Amino acid sequence: MTICDSFVGWSAWEVLKPTSLTNTTWTSCLGTKVSAVLKHCYHRRLAVVPQAGNTGLVGGSVPVHDEIVLSIKKITSTFLFDDNSGVLDCDAGFILEDADVRLAKDGFMVPIDLGAKGSCLIGGITATNAGGIRLIRYGSMHSHVLGMEVVIPDKHGTVLKLGSNLRKDNTDLHLHKLFVGSEGQLGVITRIQMQTVPKPNSVQSAFLGVHSFKQCLAILRTAKQMLNEILSSFEFIDGETMQMVEQNAGLRGPLSVNSVFPFYLLIETSGTESVHDLAKMDQFLDKCIDNELAADGVLAKNVSEAEHLWKIRENCSLGLRQDGYVFKHDLSLPLEHFYELTEQIRERLCGTNARRVCTFGHLGDGNAHLNVTTPKFDEGVYQRLYPFIYEWVVSKGGSISAEHGIGRLKREYHHKLLDPQRRMFSSNIKRLFDPRMILSPYKMID
Amino acid sequence: MTICDSFVGWSAWEVLKPTSLTNTTWTSCLGTKVSAVLKHCYHRRLAVVPQAGNTGLVGGSVPVHDEIVLSIKKITSTFLFDDNSGVLDCDAGFILEDADVRLAKDGFMVPIDLGAKGSCLIGGITATNAGGIRLIRYGSMHSHVLGMEVVIPDKHGTVLKLGSNLRKDNTDLHLHKLFVGSEGQLGVITRIQMQTVPKPNSVQSAFLGVHSFKQCLAILRTAKQMLNEILSSFEFIDGETMQMVEQNAGLRGPLSVNSVFPFYLLIETSGTESVHDLAKMDQFLDKCIDNELAADGVLAKNVSEAEHLWKIRENCSLGLRQDGYVFKHDLSLPLEHFYELTEQIRERLCGTNARRVCTFGHLGDGNAHLNVTTPKFDEGVYQRLYPFIYEWVVSKGGSISAEHGIGRLKREYHHKLLDPQRRMFSSNIKRLFDPRMILSPYKMID
Repeated sequence: MTICDSFVGWSAWEVLKPTSLTNTTWTSCLGTKVSAVLKHCYHRRLAVVPQAGNTGLVGGSVPVHDEIVLSIKKITSTFLFDDNSGVLDCDAGFILEDADVRLAKDGFMVPIDLGAKGSCLIGGITATNAGGIRLIRYGSMHSHVLGMEVVIPDKHGTVLKLGSNLRKDNTDLHLHKLFVGSEGQLGVITRIQMQTVPKPNSVQSAFLGVHSFKQCLAILRTAKQMLNEILSSFEFIDGETMQMVEQNAGLRGPLSVNSVFPFYLLIETSGTESVHDLAKMDQFLDKCIDNELAADGVLAKNVSEAEHLWKIRENCSLGLRQDGYVFKHDLSLPLEHFYELTEQIRERLCGTNARRVCTFGHLGDGNAHLNVTTPKFDEGVYQRLYPFIYEWVVSKGGSISAEHGIGRLKREYHHKLLDPQRRMFSSNIKRLFDPRMILSPYKMID
Repeated sequence: MTICDSFVGWSAWEVLKPTSLTNTTWTSCLGTKVSAVLKHCYHRRLAVVPQAGNTGLVGGSVPVHDEIVLSIKKITSTFLFDDNSGVLDCDAGFILEDADVRLAKDGFMVPIDLGAKGSCLIGGITATNAGGIRLIRYGSMHSHVLGMEVVIPDKHGTVLKLGSNLRKDNTDLHLHKLFVGSEGQLGVITRIQMQTVPKPNSVQSAFLGVHSFKQCLAILRTAKQMLNEILSSFEFIDGETMQMVEQNAGLRGPLSVNSVFPFYLLIETSGTESVHDLAKMDQFLDKCIDNELAADGVLAKNVSEAEHLWKIRENCSLGLRQDGYVFKHDLSLPLEHFYELTEQIRERLCGTNARRVCTFGHLGDGNAHLNVTTPKFDEGVYQRLYPFIYEWVVSKGGSISAEHGIGRLKREYHHKLLDPQRRMFSSNIKRLFDPRMILSPYKMID
């Protein structure tokens, strides 16, 4: 049962406009309704899964047994924007793309951008600390979330106002930061105050073909130095992924016909002045070619060419899906080990039913999406992959979840790998907010 | 007693280099020593105040009664920098400026910059979530801290490794964020992993004279639009503060002789390409003058002129100190109310012994340093100021502490103003980490 949808007239409920966000007596009407639901569930010991856009890839917002799904989709009454400070104060149910369209009228945007922007919700990207393609420039949700309203699954269904709508506020513990990336373990986020950024006037996109991974890293260093403040994306696609995109998604790479490379990079800048940005991008590309870091490259001449480059990147996942069953991964790795794992897994899966081992991802942030395809689910490949892959990642100082979170899928490995002392502190914090452990059970924290 | 100084050879202790930061069995030797101290204090119920550079302005690192001062000044064995990722992994005792000098060799810098950089420590700016003059560009310490080692004042003196040295890591609750800005209430931070940023090649500084506060806000909006990605500081000085700087610090303003303005702005950009940045700054200044937003302005022609402009800004506090006793404030205010309070307080103190009511600060972040001077401490002025000023700030949706924290000084008002429910959650979280309430007592959390 989806509780939210079962209420008649939910979307018509009015929200009291706060006279002041730090006025502690103020609570939104929608917060009050969520409070009533959580209070009821507390007293009846009913398990609850908060659900935003349900676009997550680790099953975090999906019920495991008989949990009640508490959708926040219709919590969309309040949308206040202050164009002096650039601070957005909105309900958690707004779709990221819709929020962006509204902000664009004032020349601003949400700093986070990801493939699911058309269906993921502001509340969901906060609860999962979503990453995406512009993190290298703007940072994660921790850099943007200033405050929130959150409903606690305790005996009162307590509604807490944490943080504020101020860019600088050093009063009390920064409790709102605890809810960023908490995956619905501690409470239900119903409203968010966040910093937005001015929308860039000039966006430049380039696509490079590269012979070695070492050269990819040298190009990243060069981009950080030469593009610095305008660098907004640094994406990586290996040759095998590219082949899948061309074959299965029917998209042609933009580089010279017949030239095939083991690595490709999609680099984007965002700035205020296209003449300046183009000059910087030209100098950067010249340096990459002159120093023989990149073998080939193109700069998108217009919006439609840039869109084509991003279409290639966005179709990496889709292209692989058509290759059969996909063992997907979302890993964070120190850059020197970023591609080493792909090579290791290729060796390890030699002689099995694995079709392809390939990686794409956000190289600028050390985030590798390593994928293994097989004709159909294959127990032999599964056994060769796990727990080897996660243990290898941890042994190199990496993370088994860069941006997708733990949810249901990575729960087992997460529990095995986490320091027991730290796990105890996490559990105790959960118990503080969720004394009957009714919120998002069977997932990140048991 | 300062515990750290009483240990012989502390600075000579070696630190084990971790093979992996997420290797949960690893603990630095210094962390182990701090652990022994806290464990001892737990069992003997001795109160402890962790102290970093002791540069705070609210008495957070000063003992109130008979607490033991645990200095982290000598925790300076490890300084590891990865120039691929730009991640710094260092002990908490490094002085901010010293860390910056080391990073400069690789072309990087700590994103945070503040007046006390010559004596504040990396551990201290993390524990207080320090702000400073570049926050408008790079965000607060929450945007930069990726992980930390922290020692908990429990019966084991538990050493926790929280977060990691990875830019993207969505595993477990983001507990390290709870320690940023916690003012030593939960544990002692002994080591930090943080994102640094490439050092800019080009820095441009301008100083403007402005007739009205409304025009100051219009200039801020224009700067955000036109300077956007290179805007790194937007500082505000009112006429009365400027007069004090000229009189008491012996510094001359850079604008035309005989021109006196009610407001001054110091605006700085940081970027990679001086030709581009100068062109942007020129266009921006032209727009400010042509649209009659600014009445007068200069652009620093060289480093020494820029240094002079910053000397004026840095001497605001000093200039006022020589005017007598100073009632200082560190307020966050929605921009539309930023200067209203100064005018209100001027009216309110009419007929008292107050000499001056003036404000300078980080307008770009809504952070007002409002100051009231009197010949010597004045009870009448005190009574007219408090609690009025804090209640006014809160009624407008502001914060009584923007960047300085609560410490000892703002404790009373903080406790009065905070929502009791939220206060209870903060207290319970403190109790979780600090069961005997021995760490930093009589301050933010009672």
